[in-house]
Amino acid sequence: MLDAAALAGVSPRAIDPHPLRSAATPAQETFIRTAAYDGPVMVFGLGLLRAKYRALAAGLGDAAIHYAVKANPAPEVIAALAGMGCRFDAASRGEIALCLSLGIAPERIAFGNTIKRAADIAWAHRAGIRQFAVDAEEEVRKIAAHAPGARVLVRLLIEESEADWPLCRKFGTTRREALRLMDLGRFLGLEVAGISFHAGSQLREPAMWRGALDAALALWTEAEAAGHRLSLLNIGGGFPAFYGQETPATEDYARTVIGMVRARFGDVAVMAEPGRGLVAEAGLILAEVLLVARKDPADLARWVYLDIGKYSGLAETTDEAIRYQLETGHEGETGPCILAGPSCDSTDVLYEKRPVQLPLALAEGDRVRILACGAYTSSYSSVGFNGFPPLRSVFVG
Amino acid sequence: MLDAAALAGVSPRAIDPHPLRSAATPAQETFIRTAAYDGPVMVFGLGLLRAKYRALAAGLGDAAIHYAVKANPAPEVIAALAGMGCRFDAASRGEIALCLSLGIAPERIAFGNTIKRAADIAWAHRAGIRQFAVDAEEEVRKIAAHAPGARVLVRLLIEESEADWPLCRKFGTTRREALRLMDLGRFLGLEVAGISFHAGSQLREPAMWRGALDAALALWTEAEAAGHRLSLLNIGGGFPAFYGQETPATEDYARTVIGMVRARFGDVAVMAEPGRGLVAEAGLILAEVLLVARKDPADLARWVYLDIGKYSGLAETTDEAIRYQLETGHEGETGPCILAGPSCDSTDVLYEKRPVQLPLALAEGDRVRILACGAYTSSYSSVGFNGFPPLRSVFVG
Repeated sequence: MLDAAALAGVSPRAIDPHPLRSAATPAQETFIRTAAYDGPVMVFGLGLLRAKYRALAAGLGDAAIHYAVKANPAPEVIAALAGMGCRFDAASRGEIALCLSLGIAPERIAFGNTIKRAADIAWAHRAGIRQFAVDAEEEVRKIAAHAPGARVLVRLLIEESEADWPLCRKFGTTRREALRLMDLGRFLGLEVAGISFHAGSQLREPAMWRGALDAALALWTEAEAAGHRLSLLNIGGGFPAFYGQETPATEDYARTVIGMVRARFGDVAVMAEPGRGLVAEAGLILAEVLLVARKDPADLARWVYLDIGKYSGLAETTDEAIRYQLETGHEGETGPCILAGPSCDSTDVLYEKRPVQLPLALAEGDRVRILACGAYTSSYSSVGFNGFPPLRSVFVG
Repeated sequence: MLDAAALAGVSPRAIDPHPLRSAATPAQETFIRTAAYDGPVMVFGLGLLRAKYRALAAGLGDAAIHYAVKANPAPEVIAALAGMGCRFDAASRGEIALCLSLGIAPERIAFGNTIKRAADIAWAHRAGIRQFAVDAEEEVRKIAAHAPGARVLVRLLIEESEADWPLCRKFGTTRREALRLMDLGRFLGLEVAGISFHAGSQLREPAMWRGALDAALALWTEAEAAGHRLSLLNIGGGFPAFYGQETPATEDYARTVIGMVRARFGDVAVMAEPGRGLVAEAGLILAEVLLVARKDPADLARWVYLDIGKYSGLAETTDEAIRYQLETGHEGETGPCILAGPSCDSTDVLYEKRPVQLPLALAEGDRVRILACGAYTSSYSSVGFNGFPPLRSVFVG
């Protein structure tokens, strides 16, 4: 049960060191201060999401926004975005079915995964999905067979990236192979509409897009020279969230990126697939400290164990890739802590190589807020590893 | 739908290169050959589980076996083991509640997680759980407050390990601190019954237990000298599964380990907590190839994409730690493949640094069997990352 007295020490000043980027909304505060605590919970502010969408849309101008559903597939999130005119990028039949079940027209949904079961392509085609991503010959043939005449975008492999989290070679194909796939697609009666790419996750600065855009332009130019009439450029995701390192304001960022696109591609149709950049900052996770311990009285660093870990929502802490900001409500002196989850699994350690600074006063039973957790948390959560239930979400205004 | 013709090529010889360790049972074969294919599924042989339990019990003699529920918390698994006299090691209130709901008496369940919510300790105590693990002062105080008089085992940190997968410092405490915790526990009225440790996961050879057993003996001796009357040694888990590297037969292995224990500790009560070693080999996952591709015609390695990946059950492929054996039903020449999951996530790559050799004939739509998947798969599975449903399990004889 949430103890109001335990939270009384959480002053607005202490919990809000980044007032412009991570402040809880009044609705989030109200939930946190009044609801009974029943294990970790994501408190998602739909107002924050709407504000983010507006800023991104203002910056992106007439580029179409396809929300990457995988970042947070909660129906509340999808419905809120759909109501603002957003389109959707789906990774699977399951995500397409979810969008359709919420009344979203199939023309507003693209099947963006380059790895698709043949039966799912056929199902999507029957459901009215018209746009598919491809990066391999077998995939082009599957689409020609199961979604005849569909629009395809060929995904280019971006080998060099300045992203915080560079993508591997799993998706996309080389320029030479991409051209071959375009020829094959046209031969098989598909509408080869353009190209897609993903410049990487969490591109903190617009300049990080440059290499990917140049590579995309080289393919585009070569394809046109080879007789393809391309009309649609999909710039993918990569729009950043605030995890403690400063990034430009959302609208400015988006406007700069789209300016770089226009400078290269002129007046083509553009679509973007933000996921993290739309939803991450709208959600915070309320969690509890289960134990604070030193392995030996002489140890400098304490071990802090939370009731949420890598297998109940915080999977993106793997390799300490995403470093979530924590607010504890304590002021005063801090010290280095190794942060770990509650499971009986030695890999369930969140931050060890780079310990986090937490107040010396932190103790068992304290509540902590983990910021910018709206993306890639609830849906990553395990079904029940170690008997811990999946991360719950609540949606507030 | 499963196509019987597609499986006709799966000859018993081709699918069974390790006849003694990985053969599917007739019941597993029958399911695979007759059930409609509806996405990845674990086919778990309860007969294999029972045989493994019997072999382990025979080797361990009068040591108590507490199955580590976290390895596979399926009610079918727990009930089968309970019926054979097995005891249980629970990681959470959720796992305790699951065992109790299956009619298992609380005396047969130990609360083995050293990180526990105070409210969960109180709940477990009320439910009749008497044995708890501790490795920190705060935890000893919580148990004294919420489970007065309970039996505690102090968990020793094993710093050096020869395990395939050494555990980090997350669990256990130093010898000096362990002695202090024993004193504190006794002072607070707890029954300080003994010590526990975990020598690491997947200890392929009994010799790998030596360092941990020596460290435990040193603590045991020192504690007795300090006036503690210890009676119970918990040797934890670490019993190996067969993932392609030879290990001794289960009964021989267990007998050797228990011999090493008796040589050091004499006639004390011993308990062991096998998880992986009991259930891994009893389950295989039937999956499907979604796509085989080369990023460039000149590439040597192919990319093979399955309909199951790191976020739908195969989490232990992180850092390529567990290398599952694959059977494809194809014979003939093989070549190197990078194996990846179906999600739109660049981290969802199973084996890339050390590619796997797979038949050149492998193609989209083929079924593959992933062996020794009975542990740490279904419960690690995400709730629905990328819209893919959690791993299903079926239980056969």
